[in-house]
Amino acid sequence: MKLLLLNCRAFLSTPVALSSVRRPFSASSSVSAHKWEGGVSMVQGASRGIGLEFVKQLLEKNEKGHVIATCRNPNEAKGLLDLKNKFSERLNILQLDLTIESSIEASAMSIRENYGSLNLLINASGILSMPNVLLPETTLNKVDKSSLMFAYEVNAVGPILVIKHMWPLLKAGGGSGTHRDVAVVANLSARVGSIGDNRLGGWHSYRSSKTALNQLTKTVSVEFARKKDPVICILLHPGTVDTDLSRPFQRNVPEGKLFTKEFSVQKLLDIINNAKSHDNGKFFAWDGQEIPW
Amino acid sequence: MKLLLLNCRAFLSTPVALSSVRRPFSASSSVSAHKWEGGVSMVQGASRGIGLEFVKQLLEKNEKGHVIATCRNPNEAKGLLDLKNKFSERLNILQLDLTIESSIEASAMSIRENYGSLNLLINASGILSMPNVLLPETTLNKVDKSSLMFAYEVNAVGPILVIKHMWPLLKAGGGSGTHRDVAVVANLSARVGSIGDNRLGGWHSYRSSKTALNQLTKTVSVEFARKKDPVICILLHPGTVDTDLSRPFQRNVPEGKLFTKEFSVQKLLDIINNAKSHDNGKFFAWDGQEIPW
Repeated sequence: MKLLLLNCRAFLSTPVALSSVRRPFSASSSVSAHKWEGGVSMVQGASRGIGLEFVKQLLEKNEKGHVIATCRNPNEAKGLLDLKNKFSERLNILQLDLTIESSIEASAMSIRENYGSLNLLINASGILSMPNVLLPETTLNKVDKSSLMFAYEVNAVGPILVIKHMWPLLKAGGGSGTHRDVAVVANLSARVGSIGDNRLGGWHSYRSSKTALNQLTKTVSVEFARKKDPVICILLHPGTVDTDLSRPFQRNVPEGKLFTKEFSVQKLLDIINNAKSHDNGKFFAWDGQEIPW
Repeated sequence: MKLLLLNCRAFLSTPVALSSVRRPFSASSSVSAHKWEGGVSMVQGASRGIGLEFVKQLLEKNEKGHVIATCRNPNEAKGLLDLKNKFSERLNILQLDLTIESSIEASAMSIRENYGSLNLLINASGILSMPNVLLPETTLNKVDKSSLMFAYEVNAVGPILVIKHMWPLLKAGGGSGTHRDVAVVANLSARVGSIGDNRLGGWHSYRSSKTALNQLTKTVSVEFARKKDPVICILLHPGTVDTDLSRPFQRNVPEGKLFTKEFSVQKLLDIINNAKSHDNGKFFAWDGQEIPW
């Protein structure tokens, strides 16, 4: 991936594997690619739940913005395919498997080729439970090495590798074409990843993987600031949202505290759209309140 | 490992694989094994550095206490073998590879068989760099999946699995035979694992693995408190100590801030020996100050 450390213009003459997804303009037009009016946003983990809702609202609320939606199996992502029918010119669906770095690299190459820049990256993927692979632990006795390692791979390592490979595109984009001064990386974290706020225990794998993500995001934000890159990183807690992820655990959610994905994503987009340089490295709940580490 | 969830007395009639290390008393005498005067301490990661120094000071400062020292390759652990010559009756060396859960389980079985209880568990192991496997990252561009995963495996997952398997022994021991009210689990963390205190960035793998350890330890502490177990967990930052781990990075340590391992361990043992129930789940520096998450 050394190539990605060069500036974007240098890439244009580099032969790259092209995405099979329809490109909105030809490669030769992309010299000025980092001046997209309305901006270019990427949503990683976009096939359903909060990620899909981000794609929908980004397309609906910004009539000029382009959106790149990535997921593991685009052919099975019905919600995304429906949006593609409606917003064909402004939505680009790419295959990306977080656990395979070469697929992240391939997405970066495709975005570089087609847009040359990014103004927003939302890492929306996240795993809390998966039958026979990862179950939210109710006690230390149920803590299992493979569950912990899987949670770290998907919830912490994957998003950071995505930032690594999109970094040159985010630097090229900054805030251009948007109302912001900077490009924004928004990582979906969770309040249960807070150590200071951990009063209930349990969910060892999910909790500690989100905590690791918080530390990695903070670490990356320090480098962005030191290098004066026009990019900031923030962490977002969406609240408890009515999605597949939370469904098995909604029983104990207090009245009025189970949000629709429409409501949560609207609140999170407000935070993203109003983000300033001084928000770099911070951890916000859906209502804009900072969450302790 | 279901067996380990029963109470200790039940184990005595269970045939188990015996450790090849000399046992200080016969299995038949171990009905009252959790009443050891001077207490039984386990140091995991004891072959060198801070871990070895813990073993030494525990043996020297408490003339009745027993110490179980574990490491990957006991036959190559010269420092431990020297101590074994001097304290043969009170030092028990066991082979334990953090990355292999069955070896943790085997150590727990051996300790159960020989002592029946534990009063102190110090997870002293930790990895910051290893040629061709893990290098402290200076930039996001050098972040690598295998390094992150290795750091999580050794620095976060391993110590938690050790606590999982030693938990019944710690419950059996509590503070009995010591001056404390409770058994203590002390996990060696590091100030760079603090998210709130992260001002320099870099060291993504080490930092975030220690942060994950902090969250896992906190999570375990919540369960111990809820179950009213006579066990607490604390996290310790030893300062920058002159050991193999820190040697490549000592250049920038301010004058007077590079500690000998004798000094650091003396300070950490003061914290451990004075630990009370209300310290459960806290993160202390060598000088007793709490570190933000």
